[in-house]
Amino acid sequence: MKLLEDRIEKDKVVLPGGVLKVDSFLNHQIDPVLMREMAREFYRLYKDEGVTKVLTIEASGIGIAVPCAEEFGVSVLFAKKAKTANLSDEVYTADVFSYTHKTQNKIFVSKQYLNESDRVLIVDDFLANGQALLGLIDLVRAAGATVVGAGIAVEKGFQNGGKIVRKMGIRVESLAIVDEMKEDGTLSFRKQ
Amino acid sequence: MKLLEDRIEKDKVVLPGGVLKVDSFLNHQIDPVLMREMAREFYRLYKDEGVTKVLTIEASGIGIAVPCAEEFGVSVLFAKKAKTANLSDEVYTADVFSYTHKTQNKIFVSKQYLNESDRVLIVDDFLANGQALLGLIDLVRAAGATVVGAGIAVEKGFQNGGKIVRKMGIRVESLAIVDEMKEDGTLSFRKQ
Repeated sequence: MKLLEDRIEKDKVVLPGGVLKVDSFLNHQIDPVLMREMAREFYRLYKDEGVTKVLTIEASGIGIAVPCAEEFGVSVLFAKKAKTANLSDEVYTADVFSYTHKTQNKIFVSKQYLNESDRVLIVDDFLANGQALLGLIDLVRAAGATVVGAGIAVEKGFQNGGKIVRKMGIRVESLAIVDEMKEDGTLSFRKQ
Repeated sequence: MKLLEDRIEKDKVVLPGGVLKVDSFLNHQIDPVLMREMAREFYRLYKDEGVTKVLTIEASGIGIAVPCAEEFGVSVLFAKKAKTANLSDEVYTADVFSYTHKTQNKIFVSKQYLNESDRVLIVDDFLANGQALLGLIDLVRAAGATVVGAGIAVEKGFQNGGKIVRKMGIRVESLAIVDEMKEDGTLSFRKQ
């Protein structure tokens, strides 16, 4: 999606160690106009799939998931990273390994909001090593529901997540795939 | 806002200890149609205030903040509860006391996204003891920016937060104020 690629080029900050900062419009500050355009693109890509629910994970995924669900006319469900007082005891859980913190964490959704008739579009702002996405897929499968596919804003194509999930036979649509990040900050986008 | 009051009545779960669960449409599962109607109401209430930014706190506040910011044609900024790798060192911080966990926590926003020319509408899904809202007000003031007011979905009128913040001279618009919760689950809404 050229609009997103152009925005990344314009506003990105590349830090040592392969960190791509896009927090001026995607995951700290959020540009709702861009979110709307991305939501429309996800709708265009998945509109024939009978989507009944958009699933994401807190926190920054919510910013794209809500306009996306609005396009589809369905609800959002966001997985939680901690079991809060508000969450019932009846939950599906999955393990997510954090490469940043070298820890295994659990994520949760209430059983009552996901069931076997659901056709779920998983949406997130970033896809890198794929751990969060794999955890979300596990949650959907634990509920006996169907993963229609994933809608990702920015995929780091030089990390393994996208490859792993596509090899599982799951459709992954990333609106921008960064295949290379040079130390001088230059990015190469995959042709799509 | 009658639409929200009716939805609370229809889908609420009241638990012992004054817990009002509205996680089927507001803070776990999110209904984007309701979010849009609430966003329009916040726009109606604050449209003459020259809002330049919508500020919220992760995670569930993001669900209402993004459509709200879209109505105003401005960006969202969400405060983070932990300093992640993505967050620069240049941050404003504020303390937020958690009554649930009896701990003092810090919240953060990057300095680059909040400055003294900003007129900030603070948006959140819940207002109870007001600690999160007070922390967000501190962040805005640390930046030398102006708090235009707060837009809250559900206020628990029998807790102190709303009273404290209004006494500071800050405009607080809550779309539903629950003044009483009985043990049998009956709610009384404040006439507005």
